[in-house]
Amino acid sequence: MTVRGHPWSTSDVVVVGDGLIGLVTAWRAAQRGLRTTIVGRSRPFPASGVAAGMLTPATEAMFGEEPLMRFGALSRDRYPAFVAELEDESGQPTAYRASGTLQIAFDTDDLAKLTELGELQTRLGLKSERLTGRECRRLEPMLAPAVRGGIHVADDHSVDPRALMAALRTAAERRGARVVADRVRAVLVSADRARGVVLESGEEVSADQVVLAAGTHTPDIGGLPEGVVPALRPVKGQLLRLRMPPGEPPIVSRTVRGLVKGSPVYLVPRADGEVVLGATQEEMGDDTRLTAGGVWELLRDGHELVPGISELEIAETCVGLRPAAPDNEPLLGPTRLPGLHLAAGHFRHGVLFTPATGDAMAEALTTGELPDYARRFAATRLS
Amino acid sequence: MTVRGHPWSTSDVVVVGDGLIGLVTAWRAAQRGLRTTIVGRSRPFPASGVAAGMLTPATEAMFGEEPLMRFGALSRDRYPAFVAELEDESGQPTAYRASGTLQIAFDTDDLAKLTELGELQTRLGLKSERLTGRECRRLEPMLAPAVRGGIHVADDHSVDPRALMAALRTAAERRGARVVADRVRAVLVSADRARGVVLESGEEVSADQVVLAAGTHTPDIGGLPEGVVPALRPVKGQLLRLRMPPGEPPIVSRTVRGLVKGSPVYLVPRADGEVVLGATQEEMGDDTRLTAGGVWELLRDGHELVPGISELEIAETCVGLRPAAPDNEPLLGPTRLPGLHLAAGHFRHGVLFTPATGDAMAEALTTGELPDYARRFAATRLS
Repeated sequence: MTVRGHPWSTSDVVVVGDGLIGLVTAWRAAQRGLRTTIVGRSRPFPASGVAAGMLTPATEAMFGEEPLMRFGALSRDRYPAFVAELEDESGQPTAYRASGTLQIAFDTDDLAKLTELGELQTRLGLKSERLTGRECRRLEPMLAPAVRGGIHVADDHSVDPRALMAALRTAAERRGARVVADRVRAVLVSADRARGVVLESGEEVSADQVVLAAGTHTPDIGGLPEGVVPALRPVKGQLLRLRMPPGEPPIVSRTVRGLVKGSPVYLVPRADGEVVLGATQEEMGDDTRLTAGGVWELLRDGHELVPGISELEIAETCVGLRPAAPDNEPLLGPTRLPGLHLAAGHFRHGVLFTPATGDAMAEALTTGELPDYARRFAATRLS
Repeated sequence: MTVRGHPWSTSDVVVVGDGLIGLVTAWRAAQRGLRTTIVGRSRPFPASGVAAGMLTPATEAMFGEEPLMRFGALSRDRYPAFVAELEDESGQPTAYRASGTLQIAFDTDDLAKLTELGELQTRLGLKSERLTGRECRRLEPMLAPAVRGGIHVADDHSVDPRALMAALRTAAERRGARVVADRVRAVLVSADRARGVVLESGEEVSADQVVLAAGTHTPDIGGLPEGVVPALRPVKGQLLRLRMPPGEPPIVSRTVRGLVKGSPVYLVPRADGEVVLGATQEEMGDDTRLTAGGVWELLRDGHELVPGISELEIAETCVGLRPAAPDNEPLLGPTRLPGLHLAAGHFRHGVLFTPATGDAMAEALTTGELPDYARRFAATRLS
């Protein structure tokens, strides 16, 4: 099956973008026997490599976003089988961690929001359990004494997005997908149909179908008729990768999310001692500067949540740009230009949506239509 | 005069350490006609490359440290001629900035400490001017509204320690000093006299006199009789190099030091848009981890001082180890081992003390004795 390195004259599918969404689409397409090419080159700030990796539709639930959360819960429930299959095909770990999530509240207002969240979870059919402050501290002894109460979601887990990307790349290549390390200058369009892409190197890659999965860069790709790709605004996120001193017990043993005087903050622990502290949400255009204010807010709120983080090393500082469509929902499947698909606009949910998006895109590429559960997110809805 | 690159069999002086103190000693020795070799290799965390570069004996003054501050004021007063000569000999800038320092206070306790500081400055003969909160904000409009009062020291300035190191290295080389990029394993001692050093490469460098200026590493150098070099404890400092967005006016136009609820913090601006925010003082042994707690305190106190720093980019995070003798004063000149000198233990004052230390060490190397103004800091006082 491996045709890696073979100079194809044409592909069945060319996927533009080598983040999680591009890679999962390519892997699933290749599994279905499509000759697949991925074009991408580690960008300075790919959202996938910055993301914390929370798989938390229940604690992420917001009023007005119910359909998004249903899709998230569906994707979350596919994760165990997804990572099992991926680890098997790639031979690489994904650091999937089924340890649940604790959402906590600090003051009376935070507690009121927690109650609303609990009601929404019930309405969406997502299992959760309300806890007192004392019960929260029993689960996570390093929590601040000021914690007023919480919600435990036993089914909201986490994964390491960097490990996931590496495994997806290997799995896709093992299924025969070709990876080209370049950027796409333009989609090739002739006779009102997408027919491939032209790279920055000048090389052309012909394909029957083109999938754009290039995050915030997606609308910048040339050659496209106006209105086919909606605007995607970048939503800046700053986060810190902290590290436990060697030999110390973990500071938290599951994902802990807090609402600290209205301001959301989270800690995502990994087995190797890394603890991700995130994340800001800023509408600043293409600005990818790490700022004093962003880092200060994270450390301030993280310290309120778990005072002991002061002792942790700051191993890495990260800035990413989440791609958000005007309605904050993903753009999936066929566009109005025949042969052109989108898999973009995953905003804050790219890691969570990876399994469901991969399945939906493979379906769209082989049948021409999105499956029912993904139809709400059809790329054509905004054009 | 240039003998750079010439393979000497022996030197008059070998200086161990290529931080500011080692380089200034070598430059001054070479100026006096001594054949000088500097041995050093950019360590992971040289104190000189981390330091902010404040030349602020008046605002640094503390009870019980009067002799240190007199030495500091003497060294500060030599700075204008020192940088003029150095820039002339090296052809390189030092970013010396004669823009004064503003020391401010937040709450009633901070204000009481400021009054004490003012009295101490008067007693030491250091010029300063007491200001109201409003007068402080007139000098620095970005200061927090909560500022209660301040002291303006027109003669406390700043320099860029990295530029200073580069200029000193060039000037020393132009005066014929040889720079060997290696570390010293041991001092060569025979017949109760230091006679050179042996490098990690195995090479031996013979010299009539050896100067140890290796910061916190100084006591680790092998081959020395017990008690000749006192213990030097590392005092960890974390700081941030912030950067103004291009085209924005500077956030402060002089060094601003604050006492924020008892906690000291400072901002040192440079002409190129860099603003150094520092610094923690932690007794943690050789620990050079950047920590969540250290960065959080800097950003919290910096934000109290000048709220607008939130908008600045964090261009670099730094951790250094200041070398401190048991009595917190420098160790200069001849030791009890003939031929062996120290220029170490400059603690928080290495940049400030650079001109005076260079002069004192050149005197010790040529006459065998420290000048009067440096005699208090004789390396033999603790052995």
